[in-house]
Amino acid sequence: MLKRYFPILDWAPQYTRETLTNDLIAAVIVTIMLIPQSLAYALLAGLPAEVGLYASIAPLVIYALFGTSRALAVGPVAVASLMTAAAVGELAQTGTPEYLGAAIALAFLSGLMLTAMGLARLGFLASFLSHPVISGFITASGIIIAGSQIPHILGIRAGGHNLVELVHSIWANLGSLNILTLLIGVPTTAFLFWTRNRMKGWLKARGMTDRMAGTVARTGPVMAVAATTLIAFAFGLENHGVRIVGDVPKGLPVPSLPPLDLELWARIAIPALLIGIVGYVETISVAQTLAAKRRQRIDPDQELIALGTSNIGAALSGGFPVTGGFSRSVVNFDAGAETPAAGAFTAIGMALATLLLTPALYYLPKATLAATIIVAVLSLVDLGALKRTYGYNRADFAAMLATILVTLGFGVELGIIAGVALSLALHLYRTSRPHVAVVGQVPGTEHFRNVARHAVVTAPDVLSIRVDESLYFPNARFLEDLIYDAIAENKELKHVVLMFPAVNDVDSSALESLEAINALLRDAGVQLHLTEVKGPVMDRLKKTHFLHELTGEVFLTQYDALRKLAPELTAKALAACRRETLRSAG
Amino acid sequence: MLKRYFPILDWAPQYTRETLTNDLIAAVIVTIMLIPQSLAYALLAGLPAEVGLYASIAPLVIYALFGTSRALAVGPVAVASLMTAAAVGELAQTGTPEYLGAAIALAFLSGLMLTAMGLARLGFLASFLSHPVISGFITASGIIIAGSQIPHILGIRAGGHNLVELVHSIWANLGSLNILTLLIGVPTTAFLFWTRNRMKGWLKARGMTDRMAGTVARTGPVMAVAATTLIAFAFGLENHGVRIVGDVPKGLPVPSLPPLDLELWARIAIPALLIGIVGYVETISVAQTLAAKRRQRIDPDQELIALGTSNIGAALSGGFPVTGGFSRSVVNFDAGAETPAAGAFTAIGMALATLLLTPALYYLPKATLAATIIVAVLSLVDLGALKRTYGYNRADFAAMLATILVTLGFGVELGIIAGVALSLALHLYRTSRPHVAVVGQVPGTEHFRNVARHAVVTAPDVLSIRVDESLYFPNARFLEDLIYDAIAENKELKHVVLMFPAVNDVDSSALESLEAINALLRDAGVQLHLTEVKGPVMDRLKKTHFLHELTGEVFLTQYDALRKLAPELTAKALAACRRETLRSAG
Repeated sequence: MLKRYFPILDWAPQYTRETLTNDLIAAVIVTIMLIPQSLAYALLAGLPAEVGLYASIAPLVIYALFGTSRALAVGPVAVASLMTAAAVGELAQTGTPEYLGAAIALAFLSGLMLTAMGLARLGFLASFLSHPVISGFITASGIIIAGSQIPHILGIRAGGHNLVELVHSIWANLGSLNILTLLIGVPTTAFLFWTRNRMKGWLKARGMTDRMAGTVARTGPVMAVAATTLIAFAFGLENHGVRIVGDVPKGLPVPSLPPLDLELWARIAIPALLIGIVGYVETISVAQTLAAKRRQRIDPDQELIALGTSNIGAALSGGFPVTGGFSRSVVNFDAGAETPAAGAFTAIGMALATLLLTPALYYLPKATLAATIIVAVLSLVDLGALKRTYGYNRADFAAMLATILVTLGFGVELGIIAGVALSLALHLYRTSRPHVAVVGQVPGTEHFRNVARHAVVTAPDVLSIRVDESLYFPNARFLEDLIYDAIAENKELKHVVLMFPAVNDVDSSALESLEAINALLRDAGVQLHLTEVKGPVMDRLKKTHFLHELTGEVFLTQYDALRKLAPELTAKALAACRRETLRSAG
Repeated sequence: MLKRYFPILDWAPQYTRETLTNDLIAAVIVTIMLIPQSLAYALLAGLPAEVGLYASIAPLVIYALFGTSRALAVGPVAVASLMTAAAVGELAQTGTPEYLGAAIALAFLSGLMLTAMGLARLGFLASFLSHPVISGFITASGIIIAGSQIPHILGIRAGGHNLVELVHSIWANLGSLNILTLLIGVPTTAFLFWTRNRMKGWLKARGMTDRMAGTVARTGPVMAVAATTLIAFAFGLENHGVRIVGDVPKGLPVPSLPPLDLELWARIAIPALLIGIVGYVETISVAQTLAAKRRQRIDPDQELIALGTSNIGAALSGGFPVTGGFSRSVVNFDAGAETPAAGAFTAIGMALATLLLTPALYYLPKATLAATIIVAVLSLVDLGALKRTYGYNRADFAAMLATILVTLGFGVELGIIAGVALSLALHLYRTSRPHVAVVGQVPGTEHFRNVARHAVVTAPDVLSIRVDESLYFPNARFLEDLIYDAIAENKELKHVVLMFPAVNDVDSSALESLEAINALLRDAGVQLHLTEVKGPVMDRLKKTHFLHELTGEVFLTQYDALRKLAPELTAKALAACRRETLRSAG
């Protein structure tokens, strides 16, 4: 019980010196990667740089206590930062204490919600964010994020809540372009693309081992930060219109409560829920992918608690919403992290950076951070998924396209809500029409197959319907409609046989439908029979009056039913079958 | 095409003299029943008595044009009247022109919504009003309606939006009790209960034929109306505190537009939708029940159009929301109505009543109408359903109980919304956990069954999972979780076999899950196989890369898979099977 809520009790007792070494190496690599990312994502969220650092300390320690993933690295991520900017931007002006307070409150509320959902074991709710919706949402977010960083590369001030506003604003402000910023931004972006895609191969071609080359290539962002900071310092670029990070307060965050303003909480409740769920879906995907590689186990409900408490921790230490980051966790895993202790060590690294490195960040150009973001998020954009989904499933394509278009055109919140609403509506529509097949006997066998797909024989006065889904209220009426239509069309009908091999559940609405079908068939002089009813369904039906009122019988198999109801049909089939068996036996 | 939207074209050409006779007889009987009901339900809705008469003319004619049911009788019904009173009572004072205007607008908007849903073929949405919710709602409504009529029987003024308020208000006003009203109300209620339950038997015992006795028993309400009106007139009871209907305007309704006030429409939009859908669910149940008895066909989407246009017609002729009434339609059917023309003839009867009878209604005591309502609605109250549902399905019981309690405690709108929300949430929860079974081979056969329910054999390095539901986004993650857990638990595992005999669909999210499962099993050194994949699912999968990337194979049958993956297991089974076959054949 205690182990369920504190997975640390699982791994801490077996912690060895070797595990420690591996975790420490992974922590160093992740720290180097996380410093520029945490600064950049704070910038993306419209927050001071140090907030990004703060959000990379406490949450990692807390996740190490509560998380079930051995390799997940939590911290600020691009999509959650964009969602934070969108939510908080509606309530306060960037740079004000109100803006910062709202971002912290967002992390706190989101954390409370996730923790509560975890305790209530509501992890299943995340399933309703379907893959096309989440994929479309991340693609659209990536486009908006990349677009939002272009003004930083150009050295202009521009922005907007959606793509149209943003493009318009960039166009209108293009006149105030700063050439020096551009000279920092464009080469940095190019360099980062190169480190991401080519550097590893280039180093390997020069004799470096695969692992070493990979590690060195990952230091690209840190190299870019160091180099451009030095250039900006050496040439005094801040006096020539190049915007720099400036003063970053030195020292660790002071624990404090988020603003306890109920009106504010009410206004951020929906964004907090959306950020929490989107972040959770990302977290759980990464965690499961990595866990499965080592045959480890993730508890999805405990992950809700771990992510929730991490966010509460972020808020109490002055940070903004955090999530399990995809690339970061993969790096952690590849670098050999064996336990969540690696995350705790990363937190120590980040704390040291916060204590010691902040003066050095003064001259860091914002264009460098923008370049880091652009290169990171463009890997999230996957427009090819639209084509693949179109080829595979039109309903999914519609949900994905709607999510992308609404996100680009109306912002992240409406985008994800539209996607979820559309996919739920399509799901309910699909659910309301269960798959059923009219079946007939395959000649010479005891098998029954769909009349529309196989050459089968049927008796004119027996209608056999195989129900391929559980019967419950969304589809109960469908079966009623179907049978009413069938008896209206076929005046010869004397027997309706419902084959229930795939019916796992019959709820009260469906029971009522079955009773109605039985009563109406009785009035029409038609008998209702059931076949191949599963054990648990039969147990339930036995508790009701339905089986007493049933005009026909319950047969063990469809073949038994037909042998009784249409003996002339099965007799032929049986004869053929016997000949076949004896011949093959020899 | 034209016939689909105008079902009258189906039956009108075959109209014979005999049909006419039958329809006319039914119309007379229904008219006699409908006069007191239409007055009573207008009173229940807080509207002038003539509004009930108006709502029983135009809608019946329109339904005859558009309806697909041959026996449905539309008009004012108890539950819709209560819902009208609840919705309009929040906007205006009873007796004001605003109150009447809002009720008319409610019928109009509700009619527009139903018609639009019908044209968009959204009839399936009604399925989401599950049977326990509708049954609980009708029971609770019946209790509230009966309670709301008690003040009329007592001759006091009292009311409330929920049961608590109502009981409190009756208690507080009990002092102003009117004995004469009580002397009208109580015997009338007793008489009506007697005519409903005993009169038919009593008449038959005195030699009347079954049919005749049934018809006479149904005139009970009209007899009560006539008798109490005469008594009230003869003794001048209105001067002694007995409230009477009073002036009812003579003549047919004048067609007029409902108030075109967008703000009003916005405020009644949700009640209009709820009244429409609840009414539709009642209508379609009655229509299907009656149609099936004569092997006729109902088109659920066309019924939306018919009910929608009937409500628009009600609004344009000064009436309030109408629905297909249960008891009324059964009477129409039993009386021999063969086509919707019977409804049109009933409309003529109601029009004549409106023209000629209104002066006679002046002295009709309101207590008589209250007694009519009480006797009619108490048959709707079915508290036994709670117990039956509890025994059958706990989730359904929870939805039903919540609907009843919220309706009684907080009113009709919140009640139905709470019920639908709870049953949808429970449905989504259930959907997110598909039924899957780990299966093993039944010795001596080629059959595979659930290891938890049957004595079967399995191979230690092969995990066979039968998926008993379509795979789509709500349950895609569940399968992933299950397999991750399985490979984490069983380190010997070399093969995972997914049996898909009941999988009718694999959507994009589920495909993504299958790809993830395949990739992760590959990393863990486990092969993934599929068996018994249905044709349409296979066709879809062939369009993707999944089958190329699949580490294992797709087998036609589970037996084929096991013969290859665990030959030692199937060899034994095969030998046993052969022996058995030869023995029985020879």
